[in-house]
This record gives sequence, C-alpha cells and structure tokens, in this order.
Amino acid sequence: MERIPVIEIFGPTIQGEGMVIGQKTMFVRTAGCDYRCRWCDSSFTWDGSAKDEIKQMTAEDIWQQLKQLGGDRFNHVTISGGNPALLKSLHALISLLKQHRMRIGLETQGSVWQDWFYDIDDFTISPKPPSSNMETNFAMLDTIMDRLASHRGQVSIKVVVFNDEDFAYAKHVHQRYPTVPFYVQVGNDDIHEGDDVTLRLKLLQKLEWLVEQVVQSNEMNDVRVLPQLHTLLWGNRRGV
Amino acid sequence: MERIPVIEIFGPTIQGEGMVIGQKTMFVRTAGCDYRCRWCDSSFTWDGSAKDEIKQMTAEDIWQQLKQLGGDRFNHVTISGGNPALLKSLHALISLLKQHRMRIGLETQGSVWQDWFYDIDDFTISPKPPSSNMETNFAMLDTIMDRLASHRGQVSIKVVVFNDEDFAYAKHVHQRYPTVPFYVQVGNDDIHEGDDVTLRLKLLQKLEWLVEQVVQSNEMNDVRVLPQLHTLLWGNRRGV
Ligand code: SF4
Ligand code: SF4
Repeated sequence: MERIPVIEIFGPTIQGEGMVIGQKTMFVRTAGCDYRCRWCDSSFTWDGSAKDEIKQMTAEDIWQQLKQLGGDRFNHVTISGGNPALLKSLHALISLLKQHRMRIGLETQGSVWQDWFYDIDDFTISPKPPSSNMETNFAMLDTIMDRLASHRGQVSIKVVVFNDEDFAYAKHVHQRYPTVPFYVQVGNDDIHEGDDVTLRLKLLQKLEWLVEQVVQSNEMNDVRVLPQLHTLLWGNRRGV
Repeated sequence: MERIPVIEIFGPTIQGEGMVIGQKTMFVRTAGCDYRCRWCDSSFTWDGSAKDEIKQMTAEDIWQQLKQLGGDRFNHVTISGGNPALLKSLHALISLLKQHRMRIGLETQGSVWQDWFYDIDDFTISPKPPSSNMETNFAMLDTIMDRLASHRGQVSIKVVVFNDEDFAYAKHVHQRYPTVPFYVQVGNDDIHEGDDVTLRLKLLQKLEWLVEQVVQSNEMNDVRVLPQLHTLLWGNRRGV
C-alpha cells in the first residue's frame, strides 16, 4: 500500500480562509514542501521541528482517524500542507474520500501538477508573492490553470499580501487569469505572537489596509478580500 | 419615472457577510421594512430616525451617484435595506445595472416575492430567527425557494444566530431546504457599543461559540459559519 506522510489530522472545525471560508471541515495536513516561504505559518511541516509527529499512513488509516475524530459530524475534508501536491500517493485518499461521499478541499502554491487535481471539489491555487522570497514558475502555473479551465469543481486563486510589492504581484496574477475567482488575504507574519488580543487587532488593521488597496484600484474590481478566520479566532495555536 | 426610496449609497467597500463575503462592491440601501426585528442593525431605514435622508430616486439618479462615488472602481452592486423586496420599482435599477454589466447582490428576509428576483446574481434569503421576535411565513418562504430552484444566479440562505433557540431554528430552515447553500452568522446586538476593541472581542467570542455549535451537530455538516467582517473592521459605524 502506498503511504502518505501526515503531520496532523484534526477537526471538525471551520475552514478559516479562501473560497469556502467558514465551511465546516476536517483537516489532513501532509508533511513536506518544495518552498521555504519567509513567513510560512506551517514551517513545522518541512523544517524538521515536528519530524517525530510525521506518520506514514495509508488512505484507510487516515479515513479511520477522521471517523474517530469526527464521527458523523462532517461531509467535507480539507487536505493541506506543506504542499500536498508533492504527493502522488494522495490519489488513494482522494478516491476513498469520494467513495464516502466527502467533498474535498485542497490548497497548493501551484509549483507541481498531479492528475488527482481533477477530483478536488474546492481547489485553491495560492502562488507566493515576493515577500515570501520564493520565485513563481509562471510556465508551470499557466499549465495548471490551463488544465483546470474545464474542471467540474470550483477553482480559485488566492494571494497572500503583506505589502505594496505583494499587491502589485497579486494584480499581475489576477490579470494573467482574469476569469478565475480571485481572493486576496492579509498575511500573518506575527507567527510567534502569543497574545491573541494584540494579534487580532493587528490582523484587523492589516485587513483594513488591504481593503483600502482594493477599494482604490480599478484593476481589482472582481476581487474578494478576506482575513484568516482561524487566526482571528485562535491566534497561532495548532490543531484548531 | 418610478422612484426608489434610497437612504444611503456608499462604496466601494467590501461585502461584510454571506455568500460573497469579502467581495468588492458598492451599496445601495433602500428605505422601509415590513419587519421590526428586536436587534435590527439598520432600524434607521424604517424607524423614522433618518427620514430626512430618504431620497426618492430614479434608477438613473442612483447609477449617476454610484459612478460619482466609485468611478471605474467597481463591477458589483449590493442592494440592501430595510427590505428591498418591498419595492417593485427596483426592477428599473436592476435592468440598468445589468446594462452596465454589473453583478448584483441582494438580501431579503423572504417575506415578499418580486419577479426581478430572477435577475439577481448573488441572492441571499435571510429568514429571521426567534430572537428577532418576528414570525417566519414558511408558506411564502417555500414559494420563494421553489421559484428560485431553477435560478441561474447563486442563491443561498443565511440565518443570524444569537442563542440556542435561534440555532434550532437555523437547523429547521436548513433541513427544510437542504440543497441550498447554507450560512450561519453571529448576531451583533451590541448595536450601541462605541468601543471597537470591546465589540471586536465580543464578536469573536460569539463566533467561537457558534463554530462550536456547528462542530458538535451532525445535522449541520454542509454549513458555513461566518462573522460580519464590516462589524469586525468598522464597528457600528454607518457608510463603510
Ligand atoms: S508554500 Fe506554504 S507550506 Fe510551503 S513554505 Fe510556503 S507557506 Fe509554507
Ligand atoms: S428584516 Fe432586516 S431591516 Fe427589517 S427589521 Fe429585520 S433586520 Fe431590520
């Protein structure tokens, strides 16, 4: 049996960001990423700090654990990372979830293609802006967006924005794929801020800034601006 | 020319709630409501306190004012109230907005039908729970949901929840129309709270409570839980 490296499974909770913000869901977080974003809020998935928590699981193992945690209280599963698109082996989990009539959400930065992308219901591509220190491979991104153009599920693009340069990048991405539903989200780089009140107020201030950028721009009309709800609710805690 | 009673026009800003939360949009708020919800956050549309602000406008007047405020920085217009569904005359505004290729969002409690409902792109029906002290006319709601079943736009139901009884009502509504995308939203009854920090923290606490109700229930799996973003951002201020 093919194995999937899983670093945490939790829920039911709500999806805190993107196209299905607020959706009740379970989370399966896979280990490993091909990026090293400066402000990565899940660097424990790739920096070795949580390597003892990584379990090599079969699709069936994962389903069992989802059921144990969530019982009959979920119909939606979100696969996140790291970058889950690195894992060819996810196809087994995805077909098992489909058999159990789950809706599936997944987010990836768009650096790698997998054929199982076609089976994702709520698919978010989140290319990383300059502040991440990563370089977008636009040729690969074009290929992915091309293939997903006739996708039966919902596809969206989400760009996290920390500063003006990131906002310019977000504009560029939106113009490149103008027909794809587009989200901008405020970044959280206070990933070690332990005081929730301070963090919440800072995040809302940033959100206000980002709303203002979008309001002022005539190139960002068909755009949605969102916070990360889970960070507003639970700060930097894991597993909620 | 038919006139539309308008109490305020503002934007561009973002839609703070419901199915297109975060969407950049302009707002046209109409005057008048057939309900008197205990916790109404726009009672100035019907209680006479802002009656001097009501302007009887033609569709063209409204469009001119939208353009003056928003220039070329919007593609989406939200019509809110009060209850805009009371106004047959809105059909003229809706066709004018369509001519200008705007997407149109509208919310109503579902107490009245209008034929122009078919032309709304993002349509939210928001029946009022027991804490409002209003009584839902389910026969009318059935009629509306029935007619909208084959609607080409997006339709969703949103219920504001203040307490356990409201949550039970939300379940009932969701079960009655199980295939319609369903949102629950925390209520804000601190409508006179002037301190934004206090208000924000209270609202996030309520959101956490509502998430927990949804998490615990096996009847609320296909549900999305959302805050009012504009209240988190701007408190009880008007015109943002
Ligand atoms: S792509 Fe995502 S998981 Fe990978 S380093 Fe960047 S933020 Fe972290
Ligand atoms: S239906 Fe809406 S506008 Fe009318 S009283 Fe209730 S909350 Fe206020």
